[in-house]
Amino acid sequence: MRLVVIGGIAAGLSAAARARRCDPSLDITVFEKGPAVAWGACGLPYYLEGQVRSLDDLVVYTPEYFRRERNIAVRTGCEVVAISHSRRQVALANGERAPYDRLVVATGARLDRSIDGAGHPDIFTLSTLEDARRLRCFLVGKKPRRAVIVGAGYLGLEMAEVLRTHGLVVTIFEAARDVLGRQDPALTDALRKHLERFRVELRLATRVESVEPGCVAGVPCDMVVLAAGWRPSVELAAEAGIQLGRTGAIRVSERMETNLAGVFAAGDCAEAIHLVTGRPVYLPLGTTANKTGRVAGANAAGRRERFPGVAGTCIVRVCGVGVATTGLSEAQARKEGLDPVGARVEAPGKPRYFHGEPVTVALVADRGTRRLIGATVIGSEGAAGRINVLATAITNRMRVEDLEQLDLAYAPPFAQVWDPILIAAQQLMKCL
Amino acid sequence: MRLVVIGGIAAGLSAAARARRCDPSLDITVFEKGPAVAWGACGLPYYLEGQVRSLDDLVVYTPEYFRRERNIAVRTGCEVVAISHSRRQVALANGERAPYDRLVVATGARLDRSIDGAGHPDIFTLSTLEDARRLRCFLVGKKPRRAVIVGAGYLGLEMAEVLRTHGLVVTIFEAARDVLGRQDPALTDALRKHLERFRVELRLATRVESVEPGCVAGVPCDMVVLAAGWRPSVELAAEAGIQLGRTGAIRVSERMETNLAGVFAAGDCAEAIHLVTGRPVYLPLGTTANKTGRVAGANAAGRRERFPGVAGTCIVRVCGVGVATTGLSEAQARKEGLDPVGARVEAPGKPRYFHGEPVTVALVADRGTRRLIGATVIGSEGAAGRINVLATAITNRMRVEDLEQLDLAYAPPFAQVWDPILIAAQQLMKCL
Repeated sequence: MRLVVIGGIAAGLSAAARARRCDPSLDITVFEKGPAVAWGACGLPYYLEGQVRSLDDLVVYTPEYFRRERNIAVRTGCEVVAISHSRRQVALANGERAPYDRLVVATGARLDRSIDGAGHPDIFTLSTLEDARRLRCFLVGKKPRRAVIVGAGYLGLEMAEVLRTHGLVVTIFEAARDVLGRQDPALTDALRKHLERFRVELRLATRVESVEPGCVAGVPCDMVVLAAGWRPSVELAAEAGIQLGRTGAIRVSERMETNLAGVFAAGDCAEAIHLVTGRPVYLPLGTTANKTGRVAGANAAGRRERFPGVAGTCIVRVCGVGVATTGLSEAQARKEGLDPVGARVEAPGKPRYFHGEPVTVALVADRGTRRLIGATVIGSEGAAGRINVLATAITNRMRVEDLEQLDLAYAPPFAQVWDPILIAAQQLMKCL
Repeated sequence: MRLVVIGGIAAGLSAAARARRCDPSLDITVFEKGPAVAWGACGLPYYLEGQVRSLDDLVVYTPEYFRRERNIAVRTGCEVVAISHSRRQVALANGERAPYDRLVVATGARLDRSIDGAGHPDIFTLSTLEDARRLRCFLVGKKPRRAVIVGAGYLGLEMAEVLRTHGLVVTIFEAARDVLGRQDPALTDALRKHLERFRVELRLATRVESVEPGCVAGVPCDMVVLAAGWRPSVELAAEAGIQLGRTGAIRVSERMETNLAGVFAAGDCAEAIHLVTGRPVYLPLGTTANKTGRVAGANAAGRRERFPGVAGTCIVRVCGVGVATTGLSEAQARKEGLDPVGARVEAPGKPRYFHGEPVTVALVADRGTRRLIGATVIGSEGAAGRINVLATAITNRMRVEDLEQLDLAYAPPFAQVWDPILIAAQQLMKCL
């Protein structure tokens, strides 16, 4: 049995490694078009910031490691240009063909570069190690003073912090009225105010159609970072007859199988089921890539595993503060036909004498079922822990009255006797 | 309608405040035998450590505040010496009698002082503000150099850190073979090694029957802290015919009502249902006191609310590290007739380049149901957030295969793409 994996980053290598563990006899080959595999894309902003010394520190494993330790052939610089499922083979850019019995498509995603003028040397994006290298050279060598960022998703917000660290004055343009693709005015407002304190201007509802060096939409700048519009890389799959979903990403079963039997998809090129709505969504994140890769790999090796779906949990550091979301915002819930009720509290995460900073917890419940369906946490400490509790509650379809009684840990160095989560649940109970 | 509350700390005042919110017309009186109400007992070690400047900082509300803002009469220095339920009245130490229609018993708990010689001036405990004042005076004035702590529960471990801050060499004696009343040899072992690094010696399975100034069980010392054996203060209730449970604390219904109709009990004097076993346990903690007080107060005011129970979540800082537990240890689960399976991992909580320290996550599942029934987290960062996720999972009776797929937040400043919780769940899956 031959397993071919297209893509050697998070999902692809998770699939290959898991398939090997499930079936020691499988013949496994991973094709990666880039020069390196197994590198952490989420670390790129922190390389630019200087927290990561060298790009090599982001590369977790080498192809040699996989060959030697896992008996997996990993071929970098090998682009797959076509899948012929009827012949069960893939074609490489160099003309070579490789046969498969099982295939995992993990072609990832890329940022939108369709904006006019995107090719100019002062205009950057951040999808690859090479992107990061070029951007860092520019920041260190040219010492730009003003930057425009296009897109207020997590990459745009992370880049704002990076560029502030380098002393630039930053303007972010966002086509939508809200940040983080979240349709949450309160979150957007909180973030705009927070960014302003760091001299980062947020211009919402402003679509940038073209960029040119020196000026974007009337704002003078020395550089532009394109950080808008992650799109699944699905052309290869689509041409091979693999069905896409309504989100534009590859449609998969809960086993991560596509419409072609024996062909699986995982990671940033694939949809996932949203645990609140039960419908497919496109939320490309590293955690999901690893999990769906594992499930695809296990099933490609003959197991029967399922991926239950995502709560949509996400965290981003924005100028020192953790901003975390899970589930749906009120507006998103309304669009899904639910009847959302929200509550929002700001309360200290620890006692005064342990310098507890205020934490914002916003909860969204569905009026009919009284279930928690969404949450936001903003705070300089404990945002990750709290959003994870709320993601766990959403995954388990907890009702607000049960959330309110959660037995959470308390001791003065760590928490308040009433955690902001519980106070928010009490507030929300009053609205239900 | 007259509501009398016996006890003015966490449970008593939560009950009174909630009753007031539920029924503005209720006549509410709180009797507290001590000189102050609404003070945070959990803050006492941090006063001794110097983190809390003044004991006044631990007092959240004054009796005057409750009188003025909540229309609740709070009488300090008033000890209730008898409850006559047939006459629906309580008798005070000063001979006064106060009638009630509803009663909330929130008499709390106290440390065991039955050890021989416990009254000596070099021998301390830490239940009251006065205890803390006396102990701090001694530490600052007498500059002791060697201390013995009796009891390796959370107070004993907190006191070890406090006394190290003051430069003392510390020996802890614990009657049981394990710390934190947990029957968890791996946890005990980890803590003993950690304490040793701070020159705190842990002597297990050593019951201290008597203490005398200058020496305890062969260990020379300048002071002794008794931190063993929290006992519910139930004499008053028992004499009035209120039933105690097998734990020795007051037996209550899920409405926090005792066997006497209209008489409720809450906080450290009462039992609670353990969410894993469904059986009553005695786990006196501030969070539970506040929650059960609220439910008792609401029901005393005519509502019908229930307290679902506790997961047994607990966190303590031990010489800079967070040690958190929830649910049952393997040994505890075995005693409850379950068939426990455990897994333990140590993994970094954040990427190397964000100086991620190792976090230990130990999980316990029940083999038959595959449900998570217990967990331990040890780490200098993120222990509270992680134990809270696991407490939420236990509360929701999550199976390990579902835990493994939890959509937890990831970004390099906060977490790893595979959180130690998920790695531990993967390990545990291999054993099920």
